[in-house]
Amino acid sequence: MNDVKKTARTQARLPRGFGDRGPAEIAATERMLATIKESYQLYGFEAVETPFVEYTEALGKFLPDLDRPNEGVFSFQDDDEQWLSLRYDLTAPLARYVAENYDKLPKPYRSYRAGFVFRNEKPGPGRFRQFMQFDADTVGTSSVAADAELCMMAADTLERLGVKRGDYVIKVNNRKVLDGILEAIGLGGAENAGRRLTVLRAMDKYDKFGADGVRLLLGAGRKDESGDFTKGAGLQPAAIEVVLKILTEPTSEITSAMVEDRIGGVLIRNSAFADLSASQIFNEGIAELVKIQFLTRNSGYTDEQIRIDLSVVRGLEYYTGPVFEAELAFEIAEEDGRPVRFGSVGGGGRYDGLVGRFRGEDVPATGFSIGVSRLYAALKAIHSPVVAGAQQRGPVVVLVLDQAEVVRYQGFVSLLRNEGIAAELYLGSSGMNAQLKYADKRKAVCAVIQGSNEREKGEIAIRDLVLGAELAAGSKERADYLELRTKAQFTVPEADLLKAVKEVLLRHA
Amino acid sequence: MNDVKKTARTQARLPRGFGDRGPAEIAATERMLATIKESYQLYGFEAVETPFVEYTEALGKFLPDLDRPNEGVFSFQDDDEQWLSLRYDLTAPLARYVAENYDKLPKPYRSYRAGFVFRNEKPGPGRFRQFMQFDADTVGTSSVAADAELCMMAADTLERLGVKRGDYVIKVNNRKVLDGILEAIGLGGAENAGRRLTVLRAMDKYDKFGADGVRLLLGAGRKDESGDFTKGAGLQPAAIEVVLKILTEPTSEITSAMVEDRIGGVLIRNSAFADLSASQIFNEGIAELVKIQFLTRNSGYTDEQIRIDLSVVRGLEYYTGPVFEAELAFEIAEEDGRPVRFGSVGGGGRYDGLVGRFRGEDVPATGFSIGVSRLYAALKAIHSPVVAGAQQRGPVVVLVLDQAEVVRYQGFVSLLRNEGIAAELYLGSSGMNAQLKYADKRKAVCAVIQGSNEREKGEIAIRDLVLGAELAAGSKERADYLELRTKAQFTVPEADLLKAVKEVLLRHA
Repeated sequence: MNDVKKTARTQARLPRGFGDRGPAEIAATERMLATIKESYQLYGFEAVETPFVEYTEALGKFLPDLDRPNEGVFSFQDDDEQWLSLRYDLTAPLARYVAENYDKLPKPYRSYRAGFVFRNEKPGPGRFRQFMQFDADTVGTSSVAADAELCMMAADTLERLGVKRGDYVIKVNNRKVLDGILEAIGLGGAENAGRRLTVLRAMDKYDKFGADGVRLLLGAGRKDESGDFTKGAGLQPAAIEVVLKILTEPTSEITSAMVEDRIGGVLIRNSAFADLSASQIFNEGIAELVKIQFLTRNSGYTDEQIRIDLSVVRGLEYYTGPVFEAELAFEIAEEDGRPVRFGSVGGGGRYDGLVGRFRGEDVPATGFSIGVSRLYAALKAIHSPVVAGAQQRGPVVVLVLDQAEVVRYQGFVSLLRNEGIAAELYLGSSGMNAQLKYADKRKAVCAVIQGSNEREKGEIAIRDLVLGAELAAGSKERADYLELRTKAQFTVPEADLLKAVKEVLLRHA
Repeated sequence: MNDVKKTARTQARLPRGFGDRGPAEIAATERMLATIKESYQLYGFEAVETPFVEYTEALGKFLPDLDRPNEGVFSFQDDDEQWLSLRYDLTAPLARYVAENYDKLPKPYRSYRAGFVFRNEKPGPGRFRQFMQFDADTVGTSSVAADAELCMMAADTLERLGVKRGDYVIKVNNRKVLDGILEAIGLGGAENAGRRLTVLRAMDKYDKFGADGVRLLLGAGRKDESGDFTKGAGLQPAAIEVVLKILTEPTSEITSAMVEDRIGGVLIRNSAFADLSASQIFNEGIAELVKIQFLTRNSGYTDEQIRIDLSVVRGLEYYTGPVFEAELAFEIAEEDGRPVRFGSVGGGGRYDGLVGRFRGEDVPATGFSIGVSRLYAALKAIHSPVVAGAQQRGPVVVLVLDQAEVVRYQGFVSLLRNEGIAAELYLGSSGMNAQLKYADKRKAVCAVIQGSNEREKGEIAIRDLVLGAELAAGSKERADYLELRTKAQFTVPEADLLKAVKEVLLRHA
């Protein structure tokens, strides 16, 4: 009495940029998330979760690519006409949560959360509109020891996930250093905030577009393959070269003196710009970087694991101090076979103003976010045991050869389940061969078979489907073959069902 | 250089019907979900997940309360003007998934998934706009053995979660039986589909509004406390009493003969309606119920665990056969102290038309859905160990009494972490007393303290915060007090830090 079948036929498809996940990926991701959680808990971070929907104004607009329709966010109006949005990251909602619960939270407040976020963007290869992030944040301390801690935690976590030392690096920079440089090329002051952001975002595209692409974005603008034009920052050629120098020759060993020599040097040599040594914000940023390096080195982390790199920018608007990028240094083969560095699997930084939006005073905060799908792909590429795991086996399948005996078959299933063995009754209407094929498709280790012959003799046949597949492949010698065939299907008294099934499961454990 | 602080102050608040979750609830829910998963895997169900967003037309419109604005669903338009919606349950997306991947899935296809769903409805106490469901579905078999299996699995799962036998019951009914009765009171045929649904939804409100409320909804209509009027089904008084009879005197022991006697009897005695014994759909429904009862009884489930109850309706439109409701029979105290039955924590049923919407032919399917938040509240009420767990302890807190020694303190933290002990460095800027209060707030078992005195002697002080709290409560005898005070804070050589911390952790394990 439902009218479903009367409606027009609907197409079974997903909107672009959204995907389904099967059992192997779900199980592997769960193991991965559990490993990250363990690592974060060891650092004293505690779980907290916010909902998927927030007031649009509470999330703010800090996404890169604001020029796209809907500004990157999925939004809809509530009954009372207020705008709601799906969260686009886990940081903005955390800022709302901390502001709302400020007085009852311990401060500094360390927390972590994993969850899906949504971007209303043009999807592409490896670019989804729903994807998972795993964030850790420390709110309520301006100490760069908190930033250093996040970098060390990120390094520990990657190693715990099976990424070898040397195969990853946590790169650290400081927005204050970048701001100091931008100030020096004439982009200081509130009136240039928009242009500074355009420059930072152009720099952040270096991995994607290379020096030539960034040069266009820093200058007049860049047209992509589809013909879409992105307006550039409009910098003069000399200023562009200063910015590019930072990207192409990032400082890896940093001290105040070195920075003055390397970066300041470039600027001083180029007469269009002032000397940076007098820039308060630049020096503040350098001092913070030096302290982070001091803390991590003295905690035993090497330059191979955590290092200063002035080319790190991060695309989000709200960063105010140290920024980090977790990069995987190993290479994987592209679709065309060309080897490429795997690249970023996470990042973050200090965002002292974000909680303050709600409180009228700055609240210092810093965070690190893992791109779960990217990291999952990386761990698969290096065959990490965390995501590889054992081959998933299906349940034992009890065949139904006689519908009148279904209660008896159900009894076999219950007997196995009560011993903690996953088991199922075949519920379709096909014959024995189709049922065995079904059991194979379910990756069952064995099938339990009782036709009228067996039943009359009080027996049950056990079919070892793994050996059965080996036999079918036919790669064995004659002597082996006979022995295998005997083991691949055998008959036992009904009372020995459990023992026989356990034996077969053990063979392939 | 961010402009965050310059924007107007934003209010830190959540839209109504959405909530945050803290560490205790997250951990308890995770244990609960893991337990359900274990149970479902034992039955041979495998994990699958779909995204939160689907094409609106793929989800269909099967929600109750379609008369509300936006029809209960959060929707928004894509770049190409097609409508997208947040999923309102996990069944409609599964139907899309199965239809899209039909040929490569084993059939019957047993799967499970947990996830948040969204309802654009008026929120109220215990009624959220984002909540979690945990579903299991069997697609591709019309055998009621699949329905019976879901009922048995639901019973097993509740017991595994700590709900005692007698405290729950899985009630089973059949939409075909209800349809047969509605046919008999003049609501047969396609032209009455809308009114049938109105009657079913009125019946489904019996727990909420009682007999008097349902009587109004079956007749002219009902006005709620806020003055909102819901139009009724417009049944004649005699028809209303037949329907109410089903709700107020549900059949618990069912056989074909009994049903004819109880329900048929009511109808026959009431001369306005025809005898049901000739109704094909009614008899089909009864036969299915009898078979489900036969299968569950013979698998050892009693009437106390799984039983036929003709008052079960379920509000969703798409059910076509057996429907189930998992009810908790124990009582809890209402806000006003009045004891009430806990009620439903899950339900489901057969929806043979839902996958067929995409394929042009019916695909038999049946499913069971747990309301995770409801069940969580229930398990808390009965103090189930699954959600109670041990009191969550925070990390060991290493105090920072001298900023110049932060590297030394960080070393203590690393030493503990390397032994798998959760530990953190105090990252704020407060003095010793505030740091100890912070450690208490973090539920730390102990604090590690090294001032200049201790450092010069090469010692470390360990403060047992649990014993400290007992001392502060002052409930101990004098003799005990002195001993406790000695244990609550003591000094050890720096080399014994690990041993001493382990000792304190063991005291309170």
